[in-house]
Amino acid sequence: MKVLIVGANGTLGKAVAAELGARHNVVGASRSSGDVHVDLRDAASVETMFRELGQVDAVICAAGKVPFAPLAELNEAKYLEGLQDKLLGQIRLVSAGTPHVRDGGSFTLITGILTEQPILSGAVASTVNGAVEAFVRAAAIELPRGIRINVVSPTVLTEAMHAYAPYFRGFEPVSAARAAMAFARSVEGRQTGQVYKIW
Amino acid sequence: MKVLIVGANGTLGKAVAAELGARHNVVGASRSSGDVHVDLRDAASVETMFRELGQVDAVICAAGKVPFAPLAELNEAKYLEGLQDKLLGQIRLVSAGTPHVRDGGSFTLITGILTEQPILSGAVASTVNGAVEAFVRAAAIELPRGIRINVVSPTVLTEAMHAYAPYFRGFEPVSAARAAMAFARSVEGRQTGQVYKIW
Repeated sequence: MKVLIVGANGTLGKAVAAELGARHNVVGASRSSGDVHVDLRDAASVETMFRELGQVDAVICAAGKVPFAPLAELNEAKYLEGLQDKLLGQIRLVSAGTPHVRDGGSFTLITGILTEQPILSGAVASTVNGAVEAFVRAAAIELPRGIRINVVSPTVLTEAMHAYAPYFRGFEPVSAARAAMAFARSVEGRQTGQVYKIW
Repeated sequence: MKVLIVGANGTLGKAVAAELGARHNVVGASRSSGDVHVDLRDAASVETMFRELGQVDAVICAAGKVPFAPLAELNEAKYLEGLQDKLLGQIRLVSAGTPHVRDGGSFTLITGILTEQPILSGAVASTVNGAVEAFVRAAAIELPRGIRINVVSPTVLTEAMHAYAPYFRGFEPVSAARAAMAFARSVEGRQTGQVYKIW
């Protein structure tokens, strides 16, 4: 299979590339490095990437940023920043990518535990993750040609605990390698509309 | 209690006003009628409403529009239209309303069954509902002074079946009066961060 991984240079993206690269032809994309460049905030950039890439069997997203701030300090610009990046960025990937995905191929998006288990200063992250997961359930029943879509929701990654531990006290971290397995489950399995919770 | 109901003239809003009006002082708000006027798409309009209203014990939202269209026909403008109205509109209500809600008071927002059970042409609705429900869980742990926040997720309303039946085949409708009870559970109970599913 030809597998596109957006965010291939991040902690999770590298683990997904290692997991799937053992069996498949992996193409890595990111904003400023990797095999191809893409900025998910820019629809034209996403379309250009797919035109250059040709047909793929699987599209994986391991990228998406959201701002963190106390609820009382959040304004509309902060919500829109997160929505434009991690929600609409992933939706752009699905919209522009669908014509380039082979019959029965798949999209696998990314959210995180904050959809269900909130932390202080994480309201934008929760909001955006909740949107992505519901989008995946809805898109799953409308994608053409047997194309599937799932989303992986990991808890905090072990590799990120040096930076995030104060925000995730009491959360049991998982390794990026373990979270990466769920992407293989989505790509190489046959399910659709699923949220794979890695926690 | 003084209870603000935004969307008081809709099918659900009227039922909520009937349920809570029996025991409380209900103030109805809507875009073009009711006791006060408000447009949730406009932050200044929401702030003006609260300044005129003074302190309240409960804020209820029974309003929020999203566009319906096949997945393949959705563009970024359509997603933003739904996000600006039903998601950011309700977030504006919480942000601007918090200083005006008494200690231990409550917000009760609205989503719908499409968060979990998608229908054809409902991807924006699902996406927006998922965002609102996750926002509510996150905001619940950060609101000050014991202020609570919950969300009511009804299935299709019996009163709306004349228009929506073709989209909701096999969905068992509930009456607006039954959905309205969940708003009373939120306002008069003590729970927070809950999604009350009326289906």
